Amino acid sequence: MESKNNQVNPHANAFFKHRILTAGPTPVPDFVLSAMSSSVHYHRGSEFAKIMEETRAMLKTLFGTTEEVMIFSGTGTLAMEGAVQNFFSPGEEVISVNSGKFGDRWSQQAKIYGLTVKEIFVERGRAVDVAAVESQLTPQTKGVFVHSSETSTGVRHPIKQIAKMLKEKAPEALLLVDGVTSVGVFATPMDAWGIDVLVAGSQKALMLPPGLSLGAASKKAWAKCETVKNVRYYNDWRKTKKTALENTGPFTSPVTLVGGLHAVLKDFEKTGYETLYEKAWRLQKATREAVKAMGLELLAKRDEDASPACTSVMSEGLIDTKGFKKIGLTVSGGQDELKGKIIRLGHIGYMDAWDVLCQIVALAKVFEQKGKKVDLAKGLESFWKVIEDPNNQTPEDMR
Amino acid sequence: MESKNNQVNPHANAFFKHRILTAGPTPVPDFVLSAMSSSVHYHRGSEFAKIMEETRAMLKTLFGTTEEVMIFSGTGTLAMEGAVQNFFSPGEEVISVNSGKFGDRWSQQAKIYGLTVKEIFVERGRAVDVAAVESQLTPQTKGVFVHSSETSTGVRHPIKQIAKMLKEKAPEALLLVDGVTSVGVFATPMDAWGIDVLVAGSQKALMLPPGLSLGAASKKAWAKCETVKNVRYYNDWRKTKKTALENTGPFTSPVTLVGGLHAVLKDFEKTGYETLYEKAWRLQKATREAVKAMGLELLAKRDEDASPACTSVMSEGLIDTKGFKKIGLTVSGGQDELKGKIIRLGHIGYMDAWDVLCQIVALAKVFEQKGKKVDLAKGLESFWKVIEDPNNQTPEDMR
Repeated sequence: MESKNNQVNPHANAFFKHRILTAGPTPVPDFVLSAMSSSVHYHRGSEFAKIMEETRAMLKTLFGTTEEVMIFSGTGTLAMEGAVQNFFSPGEEVISVNSGKFGDRWSQQAKIYGLTVKEIFVERGRAVDVAAVESQLTPQTKGVFVHSSETSTGVRHPIKQIAKMLKEKAPEALLLVDGVTSVGVFATPMDAWGIDVLVAGSQKALMLPPGLSLGAASKKAWAKCETVKNVRYYNDWRKTKKTALENTGPFTSPVTLVGGLHAVLKDFEKTGYETLYEKAWRLQKATREAVKAMGLELLAKRDEDASPACTSVMSEGLIDTKGFKKIGLTVSGGQDELKGKIIRLGHIGYMDAWDVLCQIVALAKVFEQKGKKVDLAKGLESFWKVIEDPNNQTPEDMR
Repeated sequence: MESKNNQVNPHANAFFKHRILTAGPTPVPDFVLSAMSSSVHYHRGSEFAKIMEETRAMLKTLFGTTEEVMIFSGTGTLAMEGAVQNFFSPGEEVISVNSGKFGDRWSQQAKIYGLTVKEIFVERGRAVDVAAVESQLTPQTKGVFVHSSETSTGVRHPIKQIAKMLKEKAPEALLLVDGVTSVGVFATPMDAWGIDVLVAGSQKALMLPPGLSLGAASKKAWAKCETVKNVRYYNDWRKTKKTALENTGPFTSPVTLVGGLHAVLKDFEKTGYETLYEKAWRLQKATREAVKAMGLELLAKRDEDASPACTSVMSEGLIDTKGFKKIGLTVSGGQDELKGKIIRLGHIGYMDAWDVLCQIVALAKVFEQKGKKVDLAKGLESFWKVIEDPNNQTPEDMR
């Protein structure tokens, strides 16, 4: 009989470690794995209740709200679906901004639950115009669905401006925001901006494994929730909120993921949110400047459309993710209509300037292997110039 | 009362992770940490005995010997001292090759235990000439102390050739080899070459935390051991060997480090030693070629003198390790007479091509900050050329 000590490197490769640099899942740091390892608690016990109590308080800061931020066992798609189920009845009219795979997914969920969806199809790589949303409003509009950051393209939508417009033009409508790749990346303060429902997932900026999602709702949304006629049991946010107030969950809580989340939020508070957002913004800006300096093309042409979550580079029919994988880097490609057309460089979560620099070196390398001349030296020069700029240039509406 | 979940990132820095890239301690991979976490066994129990049994068998392959490879709770310096204590009596004459800090340390240990030491001082950055060792031999020479890899300079000594010469010219003398940065880096097969005592440490190529060392002795050395008049208790290798044969240790065994070692050796066997040695050699060769292509100076001028453990680059009075630390990379500088004169780039243990590439980019960067023009593009080109060469060019005496 062999000993039980069967740990072997699952990623053994002589020359390259396994480096996950996608827009999610992102690397999970050791201190989070340790926190998860020491968090196998009973979900109705006092140890877990204490962790929940502290986590709930820190989540309010993260979301910028005084409302309860709920924790769900399930990925971001579950939370997106919950936002549909809990705040709309079949037959109600909503506007959905479709600027990529995840915008498309929210539209589909709304349709499946019987909503009448007016979809705004936005050119991939562009942010939606506030005017385009306004032009779709009718007296029947009950909600607007939009992603603060569309992960499939790396685009950031003007949530603050949309919220302001809705307050004036359609004060009854609920503004639903998917923050899966914005929460922890850049500021989307719910209460200050007037977001009615905000959802997020664990495996992006929150540096956790997949399997946990978050959601919060405004007072206006909660009032509507009580009147909604829709089928829901697991995803009934009223039950989740009620049990959260008792520092537990409606069913078995994902105790280790919550333990990890607690550690992550403590780390965020130690780092400071301003610094955290500056880091994400600066890594993105440095990436964009490097890509441009190397003579390569970005999907999001305009800086103001770009999300700090990831940077989509046009593959120009030359390169794909396999070229990166061969040299140990796992990056994302395009999805749906962007399949084969872009490479997405990741820079959220537990990634630093060197993780991003390696992606830029690899980008130049895979292009050069296909015969395209790329000026890496200029790219790196532009990269460091942004990273080492002493001035915090984080745009005002992302701090 | 706060919850006990106090895990916070100990290395929190907004832009740079903590990256340890020294010649040791080296990064400890997750699968090793996991193995250590699951190895808190009783050192006289059956679970630990099973791990010891399997580890002992794998250690023989690592050392290239049929003799027992002993495990000590203590760092490499303890094992070096044990090699002195167990195989020499006060007053005996030995030759010690001093080509750096660690050669110097072994000489000191020999002197403290009353040995008469004939020291060969080798120019830093150069390997010892076999003829220089031969010229110091007298009929009274009882041993030769030499490092297969001198970590403080990044130099590899010609052990195979020294062993061959000793077999002819001084067959009674014992050849003691410090393999702290060679075991797991390049081949030093004890039995095939005729090494009498070989020692190693955990925190280098073995990808473990510091605190464990290894040692083995030839039949000739063991015979001498019994006759030696020297004070020893903790470091009495006879006791260690006796208890090893019973799959335990003389005192409390470092059970978690042994559990980690078991996992590492399994991983090595899965990877294959030929591949493991090729990786180390190629990372070093790629580093040297990059440094040369960038117009920078190496301490070890001749390729045949260079150890795959680390690469010493002349700092030219311009740069120091602080420049690297500022951008998140912990590298080693020079020691003793080389203090302030070199930067040592690490490439052993759990490091891959990207870890080394980052050091090369950083090297160019810190030099350029001091006004020296460095051709990084040429450096990276030379680097990848070696890494991606399909031919295994590992020198024959390092495979």
